[in-house]
Formats: sequence, C-alpha cells, structure tokens
Amino acid sequence: MGERKEKNPKESLVETRYVVMPDMVNSYGTAFGGKIMSWIDMTAGMVAQRHCEKVVVTASIDRISFKAPVYVGDHVILQAAVNYVGDTSLEIGVSVNRENPFTGEKVKATTAFLTFVCLDENGRPTTAPKLRPETKEEKRRYENAKIRVEARKELIRKLKKEGV
Amino acid sequence: MGERKEKNPKESLVETRYVVMPDMVNSYGTAFGGKIMSWIDMTAGMVAQRHCEKVVVTASIDRISFKAPVYVGDHVILQAAVNYVGDTSLEIGVSVNRENPFTGEKVKATTAFLTFVCLDENGRPTTAPKLRPETKEEKRRYENAKIRVEARKELIRKLKKEGV
Amino acid sequence: MGERKEKNPKESLVETRYVVMPDMVNSYGTAFGGKIMSWIDMTAGMVAQRHCEKVVVTASIDRISFKAPVYVGDHVILQAAVNYVGDTSLEIGVSVNRENPFTGEKVKATTAFLTFVCLDENGRPTTAPKLRPETKEEKRRYENAKIRVEARKELIRKLKKEGV
Amino acid sequence: MGERKEKNPKESLVETRYVVMPDMVNSYGTAFGGKIMSWIDMTAGMVAQRHCEKVVVTASIDRISFKAPVYVGDHVILQAAVNYVGDTSLEIGVSVNRENPFTGEKVKATTAFLTFVCLDENGRPTTAPKLRPETKEEKRRYENAKIRVEARKELIRKLKKEGV
Amino acid sequence: MGERKEKNPKESLVETRYVVMPDMVNSYGTAFGGKIMSWIDMTAGMVAQRHCEKVVVTASIDRISFKAPVYVGDHVILQAAVNYVGDTSLEIGVSVNRENPFTGEKVKATTAFLTFVCLDENGRPTTAPKLRPETKEEKRRYENAKIRVEARKELIRKLKKEGV
Amino acid sequence: MGERKEKNPKESLVETRYVVMPDMVNSYGTAFGGKIMSWIDMTAGMVAQRHCEKVVVTASIDRISFKAPVYVGDHVILQAAVNYVGDTSLEIGVSVNRENPFTGEKVKATTAFLTFVCLDENGRPTTAPKLRPETKEEKRRYENAKIRVEARKELIRKLKKEGV
Repeated sequence: MGERKEKNPKESLVETRYVVMPDMVNSYGTAFGGKIMSWIDMTAGMVAQRHCEKVVVTASIDRISFKAPVYVGDHVILQAAVNYVGDTSLEIGVSVNRENPFTGEKVKATTAFLTFVCLDENGRPTTAPKLRPETKEEKRRYENAKIRVEARKELIRKLKKEGV
Repeated sequence: MGERKEKNPKESLVETRYVVMPDMVNSYGTAFGGKIMSWIDMTAGMVAQRHCEKVVVTASIDRISFKAPVYVGDHVILQAAVNYVGDTSLEIGVSVNRENPFTGEKVKATTAFLTFVCLDENGRPTTAPKLRPETKEEKRRYENAKIRVEARKELIRKLKKEGV
Repeated sequence: MGERKEKNPKESLVETRYVVMPDMVNSYGTAFGGKIMSWIDMTAGMVAQRHCEKVVVTASIDRISFKAPVYVGDHVILQAAVNYVGDTSLEIGVSVNRENPFTGEKVKATTAFLTFVCLDENGRPTTAPKLRPETKEEKRRYENAKIRVEARKELIRKLKKEGV
Repeated sequence: MGERKEKNPKESLVETRYVVMPDMVNSYGTAFGGKIMSWIDMTAGMVAQRHCEKVVVTASIDRISFKAPVYVGDHVILQAAVNYVGDTSLEIGVSVNRENPFTGEKVKATTAFLTFVCLDENGRPTTAPKLRPETKEEKRRYENAKIRVEARKELIRKLKKEGV
Repeated sequence: MGERKEKNPKESLVETRYVVMPDMVNSYGTAFGGKIMSWIDMTAGMVAQRHCEKVVVTASIDRISFKAPVYVGDHVILQAAVNYVGDTSLEIGVSVNRENPFTGEKVKATTAFLTFVCLDENGRPTTAPKLRPETKEEKRRYENAKIRVEARKELIRKLKKEGV
Repeated sequence: MGERKEKNPKESLVETRYVVMPDMVNSYGTAFGGKIMSWIDMTAGMVAQRHCEKVVVTASIDRISFKAPVYVGDHVILQAAVNYVGDTSLEIGVSVNRENPFTGEKVKATTAFLTFVCLDENGRPTTAPKLRPETKEEKRRYENAKIRVEARKELIRKLKKEGV
C-alpha cells in the first residue's frame, strides 16, 4: 500500500454563483434560509468530492451564521474550500456574499462550516488525502478548524445526556 | 408597558411528517441533506413564530448532525420545540426520525439546533416571551442550551480573526 | 391463515403542518388549489400506509371542498384519519385548517375524502385490516362513510353512460 | 343591464399534453397522484376562465377516479370542457389519457369533475355565461352533471353533521 | 428490409397550454426565459418522438426569439410540428403565443427551431421516417428549414476555429 | 452627456458549477436539455447584467449545441463571457463542461450563444458599454460574433415570409 496522498486546499476549491429568483424568497421578501442552506450543502459537497476523489456524505452542519439578508435580484456568490482533514472526515468552510449586479458592491451574507466523511466503494468511511495548507490564510483556517474540533469535544463532555 | 409574557415549550411545539419521494434523493440513493435541512428550517421557524407571535428570522444553524440515512419511501417525522429564550433570540431544537411506514420502526436520523431572532413591525429585534420549562426534560434542554451558548462565546475568544 | 387484523383509527392518524410560501400562491394571491391537493394526497397516503402496513395507491378523490382561502405566511395544518375500511379499500378523511401563526386563530379551509386500495407484493389488491371505531366521533365518521359509499352506487345507476 | 351571455362548450375547451418525467413518479414507479391532480386543476381552471372571461376559483373537486397508472416516459393528454353552468358556478369535466409515444396507443387513465366559481372584480361570486350544449355528447354531459348536483344535495341531507 | 416510412407533419403535431404562475416570473415580473425554453424543449421533444416512434435527443437549439414578454396569469400556447427531416435528424418548429384568458386576445411571444436526432435501441442515430409536406404552409416551412441548414454549413466555413 | 463607457470581457465573466441530481435527468438517464438551457440562460444573464450594470432581457438564444450527454453525479461547469456588443444588445457565449468529480476529467458538453438587450429604468433599450477585447482569444470571439450577426441578416433575406 502506498503513502497517504497530500493535497493543497487550492486543488479542490469551488466558486458558484446564483441569481435570487422570486420563488426563492420567504413571505418577508428575503431569500429563504432553507434555499441558501441547500446551496451551501451542494457547494461544500462538491469541494469534499474533489478533495477525496470519492463519494462523500454530509456528517454535520457545524455552523451556519446568517449575517445579512439576501434580496430578489441579488447575485449570490459561494466560495468553499477544505479547511482541515482528520482521518476519514474533513471540514469545509463556505463564505457566501451577496453582490449587487449593477454596482458590483459585495456584502458578506453567510458563513458556514460543514463536516463530510469520505466513503469507499462499500459505503464505509475511508482515509481522505491529507491537507497541506500553504498560505498564511490557509494555515489560519487550519488552526481555527482544530480549535473548533477541540471545542466540540469539550462541549460534549459538558452537555447533560445529549449528543451534538 | 406590561410585564414580559411567559410561555411553556408545549404551547409552541410542532410535529411534521413527510414521505421521502424519488426526487428528494441524491445520486447515492439517500435523501439529499439540503432537503432535510430545508424541512428542519421550516419546522423550527414555525415553532419560533408560534412562541414569539411575531415575524422571526433564522440567525444561525448551530448544529445539524446526520446520524442515520433516510431512504425513498420512508416517513420522516420532525419534532421541534423551544429549548431556551434569551432576550430577543431563542434556540429551537429539532429531532428528526425516519419511520418505516409498514412496521412503524423508528430510527433517529438527525438532530438540529437553530437560533431565531424575534422581529418587531419595523424588522428590528424585539423582546421574545420568556420560556418557562416545566418538565424534567424541558429543564434539561434549557440547561444544555445555556451550556451551548457559553461554549460558543468561549470558542469565539479562542478563534483567530474569525466569527462563528 | 390467521384472523383478519383489527385496528383503531387512532393507530394510524397523521397530522402535518406547512407554511404557505410565496411560490405556492396562484396569480390571485391565495394558495394554489393544486398545491393543497398534493399535500392532502400525501398526508392521506401516509395514513393509508400506516393502517394497511402495505403499499397503497390512490383509487379516487371522492371530494375536496375548498371552504376558505389560504394566504402566504399562513400555517396550514392537515389532520387525516381512516374513516372506513371495506375489503381491500379504505376511506381517509382529511381536515385542513389554516392557522394565523401570530394569533393562533384557526379557520377550517378544506375538507377531503379519498379512497385508497391496499396492495400485496405483486401489486394486486389485498385485504386491509378491519377498522374498529371506538369514540362517538369515530363512529359518526364510519356511518357517514358508509352513506357516501351507498350514494355513489346510487349515482352510478342514474348516470347516462358514464363512470364516476 | 343586457341579457345573460350564452356560450357553447367548444368555445372554451382546452387540451394539454405532458411527458411524465422521473421526478414526477412516486416510490412505486408510477406518476404521483398529486402531480396528476395538479395538472387536472390547472387545465380545468383554464377552461373555467375561458368560459367566464373572469377570475375563477376552485370550489370543489367533486371526483377524481384513477383508472389506470401512468409511467415515466408516457405522454399524458388532458381534455377539459364545461359540462354544466349553474348561476355563478360551473362544472368542468376532465378526461386524462396516457399515450405510448412510440405506438400512439392510448389508455384512459383518469377522469375528473371539478366545480369553479366565477368572481367579479371585488372577488365576489358573479353570474357566469349560460351554457348552450349542442351535440348529443354535450347534452349527455349536461344531463349527467345535473344528476350529480341533485345527488350531492340528497347526500348532504343524509349525512350526520358533516358538509361535503 | 422494407421501404423508409413516410409521414405527414399533421400526424405528429402537438399543442400544449400552460398558465403562467407567480413562481415562473423573473425579478422584473415577466416569465423567466429558462421556463419558456424548458416548455419549448418538452413540447418539441414530444413531436419528435411521435414522428420517429423512437427515443430522441435534442441535438441543438437552432434559434429561440423572444418577441414579446409573457406575464403572470397569461395562458401560454405552444404549437410544435416537424418542419424538415434529414437522414437521422429532424427540425421541429415551435410557435409560442400568449393569450389573455379573459379576452382571448393572442400575441406571438416566441418562435423556436430545434434539431432532434432519432436513436435506435442501442442509443445510436437511426433513420427517421421521411416527411411528406402537403399544404402550402407545410411546404414553405420545409423549404425554409433547408435554407437554415445550408446557412449553418456556410456559417461554419466562415467562423474562425469554432463550432456552432 | 459623457462618453460611452468601455469594458473588458474579463470584468463581467462568470463561472458557475452544479451537481446533476437525480431529479434533473430525463427518462433516458441523462440531464434534461431544458435544465441545462435554464442554467445557461441564468449564467449568461448574470454576465449581461454585470457588463451593462442595468436590467437586461434575453432577446434570443442564437444557438445551443448539445455535444455530449451529462449524467447523474457529474459536476457541470458553465463559463460565460461577453463576446460582442452592438448598440443596445450584446452576445454572450457560454461553454458547458461536465467534470468527473473523482478523476477531474472534463468533457465539453454544450456550447451556447445568446443575445441580451440592455434596458433603462423605463424598460426601453439603452446603450450598453462598449466592449474592448484584449487577448487574442477575446478578439477571435469578437470577430466570430460579427460573422454570426452578418450571417443572420443574410439568412433573413433568404427565408420565405418568416422571422428568425
């Protein structure tokens, strides 16, 4: 058996872009949270597939923060990259900006962190390629992801009879 | 101005039930994560509206754990309730079970915690009715939600230049 | 071969709840009839599957009465139960209420009666468990269903060259 | 005020045709009842609008009989016409055939009867143009619709505390 | 092997009709181009299947001209017919009219030409039945389709390193 | 009035990426043409909005060639850029590749050319910023677009009583 493959975050990153259509807004005129969540899951899943070069499943949404609303007619840009790789699982970070299509003005709308698991041909967890962060930004994201993993273990110890 | 209203979790809880249709499954045959996320957001949002008796917005998905897959033909049951109320925000917990429609066998598929903010008629955050947990289970959920809130504050202090 | 199983309407009843989104309303601002019909069919089908513990197909929509319109932002609550069981077929009654999510005020919006047929593993009609109505309300529904079945037979005799 | 307008069923009839796509079939491989119901409601609504030359609402689905299943790849042809006009309401009949696109073979899949109400600019019921059935077939449909209206009145008298 | 079958355009023509619903309009209030394109592709595909009596695939959209906008509430009528048949491919013309459902007034909204290829049971291109245009209008369409085919060949010769 | 603004194709180009889900495939297992057309229209429309900095409408689909099929699970990458700007209209070229998410192998699936018109605040055609092609490739695309415009004028002259 060969050595574990190592990949750079740049090799798998994905950027997608959507227009917010009238059928995507809730009854208060802003884009429905469930729609944005579904774009986030799909974009992050594409990154995870590209890093693992295998089938992946969403293990958890670790956090999605809705920071600013998104309106009909806005362009929505999702940028997703691998932040951290454990053994068989990996954290994907997604940054969602809304862009005014006429002025180009951008506003950070949503940030998200998701964990995926890499599967073999029998649907069982399998080792993912290691991550080799290179830029200062990639290293910062890698360190923050480790802090989140630790915080989650700490939280589970504190909670009364309840998973996370 | 009168006193702040107080409500029990039972007054706003919601149960919904769906059949998983073939157009809801991903290319590996199990229900698409984005679809389940969208059901979770809608069900939790109904609870938040019922507790606040006002318009609400999703502030964050604090956690969604996918514990077991859901297949075409399964019934999916979502149960959502208010766990905790801060000043203008509230945590909703959602438990998702898949049920075999022929045997009635249930499997816990997903758990989720979301935070909503209660809005006044000008779209600004406004005080939500207080929560009065009564049963032992309601009190346990209330305490756990407080632990999660604290853990999040702690995490933000540790992260390098990054929100959650 | 054993005796025919007998079940209570309470063992299979289903309650579902939806928010009316802007993409579900027709060009006059009220929820599209086709959308409500599709929720009714799905909810009734879940009840029929739970009673029969087998695959079921919709044999007929016997009646759907739209009594009051449903608007964007309303919660819609569907309650469905078995009213009557023949040999291989069963009548499901569905009551649809709209609920104002802020005041909790409910208005009866729609009532529906549907007939499903219970299928065996070869897709052929098979005997459904008998129904044992217990409460006064369950018995009233059972009697009314029988009256509807009789009326339909009577109607077929009167119509000129046309099924129902 | 002028005389009440009179129109022939041929002036408003509508034929539509769809292909059954894989996202329209239920978990047993045949077209989802809710989808066919939604096509029926839309096609019948177009006929009612064309007869009334006004906004219409679905008052009731009087009957939908599923006679034969419809499969992925089938063409589905809906033919709808006004059968009967009361004062402000009208009955629309819909015949649904599946067609094998390669052999042209047709099978009657579903029949439906719906009642619509004609609305004025304030959303209140208003007089619909009278119907002038001309062919033998149009007259037979007109007579049968009257029989159904009578049967419904008779049924309401017999039912215990329950609308139809 | 027998002679190549010959069919008239009338044997395969298809007319469909839709109501423009609020979830089909773009952020400027008119029906989304992508929606109309999808109706055109489906209607033309039905004609091609009916002419070929075989599976078909869309080879190209040769031209769709949006001549007048279509609004919420409008009826949209699509009429599609075979214009021309080559060896294994055929040109379908689609005419899209919007109709005011209250006045019956029609406006030509869109015209389209598409090319389909007829496939055998192994998914390989196979000979389509010949077309026998009969009326003056059918012959004019046949001639125009040939002119379009010639113009495309001429255009490919002129373009610099680029397919069409 | 100031001078007409001039922009480079790079300032408005857009890349989007989708996963082909099971509900997007036709009854023969490949992605439905209408779905790809709708992605093309949306992606091209975003480029036109970004170039014009104004509302735009699709005037025509000049050509979409389906060169290779796209399957469930494939990633689909759309790259769109302005090729040519007339007075109030502009040609957008779209290149669609399918990508195997595991091997990264790309296949050109579809190419498309669309014409959009730039609108002022009253919905009337208005002057678009001029295009300044800079690279060799941008200049080649600009020249080819002019050849297509000329060929269309030539074709209209040849056709018998029929627009394009």
